[in-house]
Amino acid sequence: MAVYTDITDEELAELLADFDLGAPLSLKGVAEGVQNSNFLVETETGRYFLTIYERTVAEDDLPFYLGLMRWLAEQGYPSATPMVDRNGETLKRVRGKPCALISFLSGLSVRRPTAAHCREAGGGLARLHLASAEFPMTRVNNLGHAYWAEMFAPLTQDAENLKPGLAAVIEGDLAHLAKHWPQSLPVGTVHADYFPDNVFFAQGRFCGTIDFYFACTDALAYDIAVALNAWCFEPDGSFNITSARALVAGYEAHRPLSPEERAALPVLAHGAAMRFFLTRLLDWGLTPAGALVKPHDPMEYERKLGIHRSTPDLVLFGEAS
Amino acid sequence: MAVYTDITDEELAELLADFDLGAPLSLKGVAEGVQNSNFLVETETGRYFLTIYERTVAEDDLPFYLGLMRWLAEQGYPSATPMVDRNGETLKRVRGKPCALISFLSGLSVRRPTAAHCREAGGGLARLHLASAEFPMTRVNNLGHAYWAEMFAPLTQDAENLKPGLAAVIEGDLAHLAKHWPQSLPVGTVHADYFPDNVFFAQGRFCGTIDFYFACTDALAYDIAVALNAWCFEPDGSFNITSARALVAGYEAHRPLSPEERAALPVLAHGAAMRFFLTRLLDWGLTPAGALVKPHDPMEYERKLGIHRSTPDLVLFGEAS
Repeated sequence: MAVYTDITDEELAELLADFDLGAPLSLKGVAEGVQNSNFLVETETGRYFLTIYERTVAEDDLPFYLGLMRWLAEQGYPSATPMVDRNGETLKRVRGKPCALISFLSGLSVRRPTAAHCREAGGGLARLHLASAEFPMTRVNNLGHAYWAEMFAPLTQDAENLKPGLAAVIEGDLAHLAKHWPQSLPVGTVHADYFPDNVFFAQGRFCGTIDFYFACTDALAYDIAVALNAWCFEPDGSFNITSARALVAGYEAHRPLSPEERAALPVLAHGAAMRFFLTRLLDWGLTPAGALVKPHDPMEYERKLGIHRSTPDLVLFGEAS
Repeated sequence: MAVYTDITDEELAELLADFDLGAPLSLKGVAEGVQNSNFLVETETGRYFLTIYERTVAEDDLPFYLGLMRWLAEQGYPSATPMVDRNGETLKRVRGKPCALISFLSGLSVRRPTAAHCREAGGGLARLHLASAEFPMTRVNNLGHAYWAEMFAPLTQDAENLKPGLAAVIEGDLAHLAKHWPQSLPVGTVHADYFPDNVFFAQGRFCGTIDFYFACTDALAYDIAVALNAWCFEPDGSFNITSARALVAGYEAHRPLSPEERAALPVLAHGAAMRFFLTRLLDWGLTPAGALVKPHDPMEYERKLGIHRSTPDLVLFGEAS
């Protein structure tokens, strides 16, 4: 949650003058997003998010994110869409920082997803993959499997501080993942952060996806693996196989998996747990003691790694082994 | 800006179940307010603020604030209004904390008010005093003149740290204010925090007032004095007499001041500067070095105190002395 950049009524009016969205009626800073500043803007024509991109988002990647959001909306996929100004631009600037005006998407994210939510979420993810199938831009997954060993190298001491002996265990995981990582799965545009906060529901039905600022080009089934970790663990750390089956079934109702994709789910889920463990470990180390904003606990993903390590067929739902 | 209390989709649904406002459609934490947690809630019937009152707001005072907001709305005054549930209640609870659902009020606050904004704001303040004239509840102004000496007593060292010699100067101000404070001005319900952030405009016209959580019973002209300090100083610290005249003229277009009220404006403005200096000095001392949220700078009001001290007829706009 964050508003890093302040904005005045005059700056808002100046920005809106480039668009055909009418005069501003209200402006509220929104406590949402950890990488950018968000404002809810009401104009005579509707409601929009004004997102101001802070330094943590690479400016070179913004055309990909904004292009993807516009593409998805044009395909009828329910997602927030950047507005174009009178010159056809979506990427604007305010206070010297890049920004975009993005349509407001209604919907509530669920804190404790049920199996029914997981089925809906799986369907929403498959529809995202289908809607982006012809999207012409690409972006390397710079938090993907090829980068994990170099991401971990400077963090071994942090891992030891978290839990003595953990560094060697992570090294073992990394070797296992490097050896078994699938090389020929169908590739496309993945959300790469399809967590419950980023998925909206209305009356229990999937109604939209937000926050495409990790989207990239990678194996489609990797997105399912990220989602299995994010949606199907109980608060006590146990894996809910019913929820996982529902998520995959919801996905396959729109886009059936190939046998290779299905067989790869365990190693993909193990790897997806590694990706979030590594970034949380990094953020944990960077946060000064006593900081107001607590980063996500890396131990949550350390436990998920442990489960995938010890029960490698878990996400095949007991069908294998 | 703050969201101190988190709330889940389930807690929101449970709260809304007591109201006839329809099902929830969206929920966003709002980075606004320093004393409470605010969420923008969209339901099938409209948009509302869910305000969760944190410890800094005395729970005993909430019936006064919420009662005043409902009263004002019933008089047709443009302000946000608490919604009543099916039992006629406005004060609810969530996560064990008091809360209220308050109607969303559109409008933009202005960062750099012009004289025209000051005229509009003055009119809005007079209309507030007229609309609350028959409001039956009262609340002592516990940040009012009777409390300033005891508020300052534990802060003398903080004042010295801010500027050597300041403590004695403040003591002198307090003695002056105690001696000259007017005792028989018309009393009523005052906003007591009528700053530009709390006043909304649409197309340059006053369109509403928010944040009644300092409202209390005091001299009506004291509210004008607070506003003169808040609206009529330039960023360079100078007092803008044109803006001040406009603010008072805007006020008097709705509620003419008595000669006694007008004559009291200088000492009231000096006192109003003291009130904000004292609370900012207190907050400044309480904030640890390096904190993410910087409190308001007490020096801004130290400078305003100095101006009222040296040019005591200033807010009479050069008509006296």
